[in-house]
Amino acid sequence: MKKKLKGRLKKIFEDIKKNRKINKIPNFWKSLAHNPDNLERTWNNLKEIMKKGALDPVTKELIYVAVSITNHCDYCIRSHTAAAKKKGATDQMIKEMIDVVGLANQNNKFVAGYQVEVDKIYK
Amino acid sequence: MKKKLKGRLKKIFEDIKKNRKINKIPNFWKSLAHNPDNLERTWNNLKEIMKKGALDPVTKELIYVAVSITNHCDYCIRSHTAAAKKKGATDQMIKEMIDVVGLANQNNKFVAGYQVEVDKIYK
Amino acid sequence: MKKKLKGRLKKIFEDIKKNRKINKIPNFWKSLAHNPDNLERTWNNLKEIMKKGALDPVTKELIYVAVSITNHCDYCIRSHTAAAKKKGATDQMIKEMIDVVGLANQNNKFVAGYQVEVDKIYK
Amino acid sequence: MKKKLKGRLKKIFEDIKKNRKINKIPNFWKSLAHNPDNLERTWNNLKEIMKKGALDPVTKELIYVAVSITNHCDYCIRSHTAAAKKKGATDQMIKEMIDVVGLANQNNKFVAGYQVEVDKIYK
Amino acid sequence: MKKKLKGRLKKIFEDIKKNRKINKIPNFWKSLAHNPDNLERTWNNLKEIMKKGALDPVTKELIYVAVSITNHCDYCIRSHTAAAKKKGATDQMIKEMIDVVGLANQNNKFVAGYQVEVDKIYK
Amino acid sequence: MKKKLKGRLKKIFEDIKKNRKINKIPNFWKSLAHNPDNLERTWNNLKEIMKKGALDPVTKELIYVAVSITNHCDYCIRSHTAAAKKKGATDQMIKEMIDVVGLANQNNKFVAGYQVEVDKIYK
Repeated sequence: MKKKLKGRLKKIFEDIKKNRKINKIPNFWKSLAHNPDNLERTWNNLKEIMKKGALDPVTKELIYVAVSITNHCDYCIRSHTAAAKKKGATDQMIKEMIDVVGLANQNNKFVAGYQVEVDKIYK
Repeated sequence: MKKKLKGRLKKIFEDIKKNRKINKIPNFWKSLAHNPDNLERTWNNLKEIMKKGALDPVTKELIYVAVSITNHCDYCIRSHTAAAKKKGATDQMIKEMIDVVGLANQNNKFVAGYQVEVDKIYK
Repeated sequence: MKKKLKGRLKKIFEDIKKNRKINKIPNFWKSLAHNPDNLERTWNNLKEIMKKGALDPVTKELIYVAVSITNHCDYCIRSHTAAAKKKGATDQMIKEMIDVVGLANQNNKFVAGYQVEVDKIYK
Repeated sequence: MKKKLKGRLKKIFEDIKKNRKINKIPNFWKSLAHNPDNLERTWNNLKEIMKKGALDPVTKELIYVAVSITNHCDYCIRSHTAAAKKKGATDQMIKEMIDVVGLANQNNKFVAGYQVEVDKIYK
Repeated sequence: MKKKLKGRLKKIFEDIKKNRKINKIPNFWKSLAHNPDNLERTWNNLKEIMKKGALDPVTKELIYVAVSITNHCDYCIRSHTAAAKKKGATDQMIKEMIDVVGLANQNNKFVAGYQVEVDKIYK
Repeated sequence: MKKKLKGRLKKIFEDIKKNRKINKIPNFWKSLAHNPDNLERTWNNLKEIMKKGALDPVTKELIYVAVSITNHCDYCIRSHTAAAKKKGATDQMIKEMIDVVGLANQNNKFVAGYQVEVDKIYK
């Protein structure tokens, strides 16, 4: 690997460690490192998107996990459930999120099964 | 339709109107009415699951919409975005939720594409 | 279009009409006709797979619709619900199928959400 | 865990064992036990939905597995294939179900790829 | 809308028009404009990712459409099929891509249905 | 197993080995062998669909993997990434394909989240 590239990766990895308060780079970021442009894009976007805004970081992590459950992405479910807890999510909050995910997935299919038409007030 | 059944449906429909503060039953619930057992189950579960708990009702609605976006369920996206707003979600909160949904769907696929192994700390 | 190709398409279209007891080719098959190899493959496979075997044709159509609901494919839900009814499925059977589809989609996500490990007896 | 809760869980677990004719609670139900309301809801709904109706229990299990295959839920595929067999599904029935699932998933995508419009007769 | 924001949006819109050789901003980009940070991120990433690299732009568009078909995203299928053609994709190429998408979706489900274990040589 | 069936399976297996230039039948094809009709259909279709046409075999394999990533099918991702490389795909091509898959999955959800209407020019 070229020297310049190594410096670039190192800088991002340091930023990940500092921002996440961890000592070891998770496998996700190591995998992306084979594609430095993608690593840089993905990390910068994630930092920007998951930070406190109108929604607090815990809510954002719970939404992230809800999507990952719907997509059956085991790595994402485990790593972002851990992140949610680190940021303050309680076990009860996680359970309630899973309840909502189950309900929404069920009702999404009822809508398809009965081919429900959109009500005028929702258009 | 038998008298007893009509009474049962009417009772659920009144409960939906009262609970949701609406005058007209949305098409979703009308469709389920062809299957009264399912209607009753689904309404009771939804009332129970979406009420205030460790998570507030707005957060629950946002999670519901996030799942519906991931599943491309147009009816569900529209009706529950409306519900989220009615319960207090701002446009900014909805935008940030969509940002997270996009990011999570992208990263879920990076994990699959690179076949990232689960880190020990997440097991 | 070349003469030979036209004859080939015509033969498949006649087979579809006869087999399905219809007078008009549905849009699905018309769309595939732009790709005659695919049309031929798909029609032959469908005829073979959906015919009576250990499972009766109604059960097969219900399974087909269950998959299409899970994938939110409106065309497929509508055309194969119609096919199921034509082959003898009652409204009650269709409702119960939709109930199972909703339940399975919900429980699939509970399994993911709680990261349930496979029991030894299922391995 | 409080005494009352333990009694409630025990009652549901006994019902699961009796109803399923098993001696050991599968991991799925143990996972849900962390959320007793969800456990109770899910078990009661499952018992009600999967029982004999216009569709027999074997057909319902096959539909359940078809959905689980479409969602790539390994636990659900394994546990409900086992359940289907216990209720009388033969290997041949399971193979034919998988054939239909493959075909439907393929054709669902052809419909999307060619953007097939819904025929008037299906509206 | 504040003056500064308007200038920023205008600049991105001009870049989209120039890069895509179009006179009218498509609805996708207009929708994202309600969330200028997301608009900027998404446009910059798309420009970077879809440009010529080891893969040519036509191949990249075909891959984009293949994903969109798998997700049943009508807007994305239509707009990126148009983009693929503009960049040089022939009807025959698009048909063959759809064939592959159908086959892969079918075989993905066979793998799940038969719970195929990963061969050693693929680990 | 009957003699005739064994001969039929053997013939297909020989064809797979020869066509793929391998000495050992992968688990996927072994699993399908329990359903010889399906094995024959699937192998013949795959041979036909994945061969050189308007699209070259490498592009077809990349599209196949892109679909498999979107569906989170680990076996398919691993086996067809290997196939793509065997046919000439470079690591850089695979990385760029994964970039496109991530982007498309993200944008598919933005379209759903903002309920973007199809532009006239795409109809």
